[in-house]
Amino acid sequence: MWCGRFTLEPHEMLTKFSESVSFDWRLYRHDIDASIAHARMLGKQGIVPKEEVKQIEEGLENIRKRIDEESFEFSAKLEDIHMNIEKALTDLIGEAGARLHSGRSRNDQIATDIRLFIREEIDQIRLLIEGVQRELVKLSAEHTETIFPGYTHLQHAQPVVFAHHLLAYVEMLERDKDRLSDCKKRVNILPLGSAALAGTTLPLDREFVATSLGFSDITRNSMDAVSDRDFILEFLSCISIMAIHISRFSEDVIFWFSQEVSFIEIGDQFCTGSSLMPQKKNPDILELARGRTGQIIGNLVSLLVVMKGLPMCYNRDIQEDKIPLMNSIDVIKGVLAVLAPMISSITANKSKMLAAASDPALMATDLAEWLVRRNVPFRLAHHRVGRFVGYCRERNIPLNGCSFEELKLCIPEADETCLELWDPKKSVSSRDIFGGTAPRRVRQQLEFWNSKEFMREH
Amino acid sequence: MWCGRFTLEPHEMLTKFSESVSFDWRLYRHDIDASIAHARMLGKQGIVPKEEVKQIEEGLENIRKRIDEESFEFSAKLEDIHMNIEKALTDLIGEAGARLHSGRSRNDQIATDIRLFIREEIDQIRLLIEGVQRELVKLSAEHTETIFPGYTHLQHAQPVVFAHHLLAYVEMLERDKDRLSDCKKRVNILPLGSAALAGTTLPLDREFVATSLGFSDITRNSMDAVSDRDFILEFLSCISIMAIHISRFSEDVIFWFSQEVSFIEIGDQFCTGSSLMPQKKNPDILELARGRTGQIIGNLVSLLVVMKGLPMCYNRDIQEDKIPLMNSIDVIKGVLAVLAPMISSITANKSKMLAAASDPALMATDLAEWLVRRNVPFRLAHHRVGRFVGYCRERNIPLNGCSFEELKLCIPEADETCLELWDPKKSVSSRDIFGGTAPRRVRQQLEFWNSKEFMREH
Amino acid sequence: MWCGRFTLEPHEMLTKFSESVSFDWRLYRHDIDASIAHARMLGKQGIVPKEEVKQIEEGLENIRKRIDEESFEFSAKLEDIHMNIEKALTDLIGEAGARLHSGRSRNDQIATDIRLFIREEIDQIRLLIEGVQRELVKLSAEHTETIFPGYTHLQHAQPVVFAHHLLAYVEMLERDKDRLSDCKKRVNILPLGSAALAGTTLPLDREFVATSLGFSDITRNSMDAVSDRDFILEFLSCISIMAIHISRFSEDVIFWFSQEVSFIEIGDQFCTGSSLMPQKKNPDILELARGRTGQIIGNLVSLLVVMKGLPMCYNRDIQEDKIPLMNSIDVIKGVLAVLAPMISSITANKSKMLAAASDPALMATDLAEWLVRRNVPFRLAHHRVGRFVGYCRERNIPLNGCSFEELKLCIPEADETCLELWDPKKSVSSRDIFGGTAPRRVRQQLEFWNSKEFMREH
Amino acid sequence: MWCGRFTLEPHEMLTKFSESVSFDWRLYRHDIDASIAHARMLGKQGIVPKEEVKQIEEGLENIRKRIDEESFEFSAKLEDIHMNIEKALTDLIGEAGARLHSGRSRNDQIATDIRLFIREEIDQIRLLIEGVQRELVKLSAEHTETIFPGYTHLQHAQPVVFAHHLLAYVEMLERDKDRLSDCKKRVNILPLGSAALAGTTLPLDREFVATSLGFSDITRNSMDAVSDRDFILEFLSCISIMAIHISRFSEDVIFWFSQEVSFIEIGDQFCTGSSLMPQKKNPDILELARGRTGQIIGNLVSLLVVMKGLPMCYNRDIQEDKIPLMNSIDVIKGVLAVLAPMISSITANKSKMLAAASDPALMATDLAEWLVRRNVPFRLAHHRVGRFVGYCRERNIPLNGCSFEELKLCIPEADETCLELWDPKKSVSSRDIFGGTAPRRVRQQLEFWNSKEFMREH
Repeated sequence: MWCGRFTLEPHEMLTKFSESVSFDWRLYRHDIDASIAHARMLGKQGIVPKEEVKQIEEGLENIRKRIDEESFEFSAKLEDIHMNIEKALTDLIGEAGARLHSGRSRNDQIATDIRLFIREEIDQIRLLIEGVQRELVKLSAEHTETIFPGYTHLQHAQPVVFAHHLLAYVEMLERDKDRLSDCKKRVNILPLGSAALAGTTLPLDREFVATSLGFSDITRNSMDAVSDRDFILEFLSCISIMAIHISRFSEDVIFWFSQEVSFIEIGDQFCTGSSLMPQKKNPDILELARGRTGQIIGNLVSLLVVMKGLPMCYNRDIQEDKIPLMNSIDVIKGVLAVLAPMISSITANKSKMLAAASDPALMATDLAEWLVRRNVPFRLAHHRVGRFVGYCRERNIPLNGCSFEELKLCIPEADETCLELWDPKKSVSSRDIFGGTAPRRVRQQLEFWNSKEFMREH
Repeated sequence: MWCGRFTLEPHEMLTKFSESVSFDWRLYRHDIDASIAHARMLGKQGIVPKEEVKQIEEGLENIRKRIDEESFEFSAKLEDIHMNIEKALTDLIGEAGARLHSGRSRNDQIATDIRLFIREEIDQIRLLIEGVQRELVKLSAEHTETIFPGYTHLQHAQPVVFAHHLLAYVEMLERDKDRLSDCKKRVNILPLGSAALAGTTLPLDREFVATSLGFSDITRNSMDAVSDRDFILEFLSCISIMAIHISRFSEDVIFWFSQEVSFIEIGDQFCTGSSLMPQKKNPDILELARGRTGQIIGNLVSLLVVMKGLPMCYNRDIQEDKIPLMNSIDVIKGVLAVLAPMISSITANKSKMLAAASDPALMATDLAEWLVRRNVPFRLAHHRVGRFVGYCRERNIPLNGCSFEELKLCIPEADETCLELWDPKKSVSSRDIFGGTAPRRVRQQLEFWNSKEFMREH
Repeated sequence: MWCGRFTLEPHEMLTKFSESVSFDWRLYRHDIDASIAHARMLGKQGIVPKEEVKQIEEGLENIRKRIDEESFEFSAKLEDIHMNIEKALTDLIGEAGARLHSGRSRNDQIATDIRLFIREEIDQIRLLIEGVQRELVKLSAEHTETIFPGYTHLQHAQPVVFAHHLLAYVEMLERDKDRLSDCKKRVNILPLGSAALAGTTLPLDREFVATSLGFSDITRNSMDAVSDRDFILEFLSCISIMAIHISRFSEDVIFWFSQEVSFIEIGDQFCTGSSLMPQKKNPDILELARGRTGQIIGNLVSLLVVMKGLPMCYNRDIQEDKIPLMNSIDVIKGVLAVLAPMISSITANKSKMLAAASDPALMATDLAEWLVRRNVPFRLAHHRVGRFVGYCRERNIPLNGCSFEELKLCIPEADETCLELWDPKKSVSSRDIFGGTAPRRVRQQLEFWNSKEFMREH
Repeated sequence: MWCGRFTLEPHEMLTKFSESVSFDWRLYRHDIDASIAHARMLGKQGIVPKEEVKQIEEGLENIRKRIDEESFEFSAKLEDIHMNIEKALTDLIGEAGARLHSGRSRNDQIATDIRLFIREEIDQIRLLIEGVQRELVKLSAEHTETIFPGYTHLQHAQPVVFAHHLLAYVEMLERDKDRLSDCKKRVNILPLGSAALAGTTLPLDREFVATSLGFSDITRNSMDAVSDRDFILEFLSCISIMAIHISRFSEDVIFWFSQEVSFIEIGDQFCTGSSLMPQKKNPDILELARGRTGQIIGNLVSLLVVMKGLPMCYNRDIQEDKIPLMNSIDVIKGVLAVLAPMISSITANKSKMLAAASDPALMATDLAEWLVRRNVPFRLAHHRVGRFVGYCRERNIPLNGCSFEELKLCIPEADETCLELWDPKKSVSSRDIFGGTAPRRVRQQLEFWNSKEFMREH
């Protein structure tokens, strides 16, 4: 297709080494959509006769159908999806096909295709995120009163309600969607018309193409437009942050599911066994979800390394954008898709949770704050309660295991109402602040989420 | 400060190993600002007497002044900036100081401080970016007619004007600012009031604090709020993408400055010599700017690794957010600050640029598009011109080095007007499309940039 | 295979999400080799009857043949290559097949398979590296007297011979081989016999299996043995460093091939054209080789992230070792394979190289060292020559463009013999130190390489 | 020092931006050692008069002393440690100092300095690793009979002895030392004599310098020698793998220390409290050790990014090797230094460990292997035991909670001796295979470690 000036055929190894159609074939729908919009514009501008535009459209739709049906044969010799389609088109409709590439380069063509591709994937990923949010919100709805030990440093900190913990992940996922939306603004700009790097001498109508393809704007600088891959880097960053969230959720669930903790049960259908140990039931989904963070971060690093230090404009290195991009999309979609039903299979062991949260040590802060309300400066209150904790630990008794006199010894300001502080339910209810864990506040948040569009689906 | 319950003093090594004040001292202004807002709110809510609030404010301002003046002595034993300031405050004003930490944990305190810090840094970085944009736009203004060889694959592609190439970088930097603005939306939300993880039993007014500190919203889930570092990851991603841009610009300039290319001269004051080779004048700034991309990407990876797989909520690992954050800020600010004056020291060697762009091979596309306008299908036009290029190469002559008959032999449709196509100025002018390199279009873009607020500064 | 204790079938999504046979099928030869060695040992130890061992061997060889011939059908339901083979074996030979997994877990089985796999790949990669070294050495042999401008900071530094530059890459590749050899020592240790994590109650003979499979040692701790992936991390580090070398070589060749530099020509068969610009001949192989560094570094990061913070022993996350491992192997082998013939297609433009190296400025150091030999302290000599360079630059003349009197003015110690220093051939010859660029020294190095085994192949 | 040819002073910003003395000052001892060796060689070769060599030595020792005593003032204007020292030397001894740089460039000088630096650091790090190994071995010695639940997938798998688990980490650390030793072979080669890139015209004796400085070899190619940073990349890879080990160990200990698990207690002196929650005792050291993996991996990525795509030979980007290198060294040394005493403060809660390991489900594999010894094919045995596990789970009873008849129902081959299998001590003892967890075998390994040199220290 481009070999007019060459005297030797491409080396067989070059073909194998440099082809991209084995992975960029996935862009065929977007490539065809963009080509149709381009062809219509060429017709409108009088660059290609209208009747040939019709032939091009029909030819491209024919090719789309054959690829849809897996009856299209891709050729590595034709390098990429663009050349495969153009060649097939020309084979099909002759000369008209040979006019399609007027005023266009693969440089602006691929930039357009990937933008269309990512735009669509962002929408799909958003839906999958909402699928996970939905299950988390549903599970939360059952646990607005379920007392649960809140941790910091993997140590018991303060009681919370289980719903509060679950909704923290809903928040994270919401931010992931926000970031993707912001990213989409920068994705949804049309580079076509930039040609190889400098624009074209043909009188294209870029606005027409942009409107046809639903782009919200057109790029302002052709040299930038063909070598910009920011939007992929930004997208891969968004996915990486999301993967971090999922890895943290997985870590939590794996911990809850360990025999020592036993806060939850996961459905048999989402666990696997061992080839050797007959008793095993392993939370593989969560381990894999956590582990796949590796690929996703690796993909981000991969493209950052590719782009680092490249001169302007297009360099073939940039072709290396697609493997990490597509891999991250596949991985994150796979993870999100499996997490939703897995979450719905979780059952909580409320008594285990309550027992863990009932150690009065978790209410030590309540006591300190009780003292603050009695005008003891907080730092002093903290110190006194700390001494009291130390006193109990030395005797190896729980905070409610010593006499009231002993308590008074450490904390002179204490009175009998202190003893009510050891109740984790009261503790939870008393954290009645916006964003806090009081059931009233958590239900308020739950209402917020339940009012969301995405909760109405399914 | 927290050791009431402990029987042994912290091991000397623990102190050294876990302290953060050696780097988080930089947050002192934000910590003090947040503490003052917190204190006023405690006063308003009746948790701390009004007169003590006043003492706290005065005490904190005193401490701020001492740190400003570098007369404050930080202690690693007190772990971090928060404890250093609280201790100094209590030493200064006694009991009132010990009330400050009411309803607050270092977990929500540090999250607040960093958000204030990044918010401010984003604004500063934006200004520095605009400083670079300004110099690029100014340099562009001198070169809207300067013919320059456009490259793809580091091979001559098509002529452009030098301004067009420079403005491509202005575009990239503009996107960097956009991304930072989007990031700032997610930074500018107040976590204070989340306490350690669950909120507090004290009747805080979070909205009051948010308004005082200029936050646009408050966090909705306390567990998320104290362990969320998304905004740092997002910020580090933005900086990484920006570093990629700078590394590419540096690569370009280093190439232009090589003896073989000699398109530009850089001011002596921005180059360095060699300890051994007396003739050397090296573009160190650009090499360092390119190289520092390493640290910046490394910092992003660093925090992604830190956060991966952490259980909820706060874990001490999260303290490792600050070193990569602060390092990336320092590095990018340093790079941006030095790039601006370096760019203003660049002088272009127009004759070298023109000579490189004048090889008729760069106008081969013009000829193909000329044929398209004469109704030759593009792919055929491309092939014929390619053959003509091959014909000339075999004879080792430039495209304008053979006779018109030889040209006709390869391209039957050619007529004498073709010969005008070899003029790079005409070539450039004919790419008259929005985003294209025609001087008319580039001046249009230049007007766009010149109308920006940031061009009026300085 | 492991579902005795489960009440529900695995969810369809779990199967798809957690299967690994779509990529770990590539380990089938190693899995079968290891199973045969294991079976023979089970026979020898009386755990499986000898006649059944024979059946197992024949069955496994039958399966190997079917996979070789691509007539074996893999099932994702059977999760991985191990279960696919075991199931096929039991289908084929019945009960005997069901005895194979005695005293073995997939945990030690996969660790064994990957070690066998990497051991083989290291050998293949070493051969491919030597293929590249061979072509570099051959090309060097033609250029031991070819004067070439040595660069630092992409600025002309001192003349070298072209062979010297090429042999620098041979050195780097030699270190890559050394590192792989060291890595192989740690790969070549048998974990089988560690079972799931604790060893087995069956009386296995691990030394027998190690000897059968050519391992040089057996692991000492079963818990470590099943969860150790150091050897993959180390291998991926070696590959990453190698990729850095290749990216640097590519950068050099791309620069040399740019029109401004034109030091070399690359064979048409290793270049590609443009879909739009008919004149283009692009060094795609080198751009792709440079770009694929991204994937390789991404893969290393990927596995580091996977392993970070995993508790002992095996976690399913560890399954994520194979995709980055296999990808890095495929990528590096592809790059090495194509580089060798590409290098052999390079032709040097000696006159361009000589011209670039002939600017007397490159001999400024020679003059300074000449002064040192005349007892001028080096720093003073450097300064004087620097002043002389500045003097010439101000007048825009080359160092040999001013009169001898002007030279004396700047450098009083100069005499007429100085003028001979401007000859780049003399300059090169005078760097006659071990490791230096004098042709005599470079030929010495060339002899060193030519005496290597790998130069005799092909 | 190098500015003879420049007409303008370096821009103030350039100085600040490009200086490295603020971090490379740490190389002063190595720089001085190398300079002394270089000077002696210059004397021996007659390039510098012997008496001046003596002055140089004395001057350098004087400077070393001043830096040791922190009375030396570094100047950013002098860029780096080399120029700072050379200038101070010349200020001190005049002309002789100006002779030192003969035949040397900062390019080969810094390469030499870093190699000396890393060589020393490797030795120190090895000692610190051995300090951690020593404490792990000592702790293991107390626990060769301590029954402990072995995990896979954070689920109970099989009983092991606690020492076995601890010794797994000793193995990992031993491999880390091996890798460092292999790395050191490639570090310990002298580049000095390569000068800027091409060698020198002065008659240096490189072997003499190598011997003086304890290098085992000299580099073979000057262009490679000055731009090679492989040894740092390899070193940073070794450190990264080590950090992975430490992150895994930390994860384990943090889990063991959680209230739900409570297998161990950590000394108060290695834990910290909370500013808000008075009861808290957090395993901060381990969280920080785990978290610092981030910086270490980030540093490796950082240098990989720096080196990617750099042309030959030295580019200023390469200066960016030192910050990640030094940071990784500081971080890993800090972590290793604090881990050793922290480990010695660990006390095991044997009864908790035993209780967790006593659930008969952990002995399910023992039953399956018991059946194998009674000639039941393993896969069938596994299935039967799995069914039995399922039977018990449905009834919510432990495996030893049902009658012998019920056991027979699921496993017809069972006899009364099966019941002895539920004893975790027997289970552990029966894994009597090299590398297995039987106390006899673990003691064997302990002897292996106790025989090591490093166990005799302290």
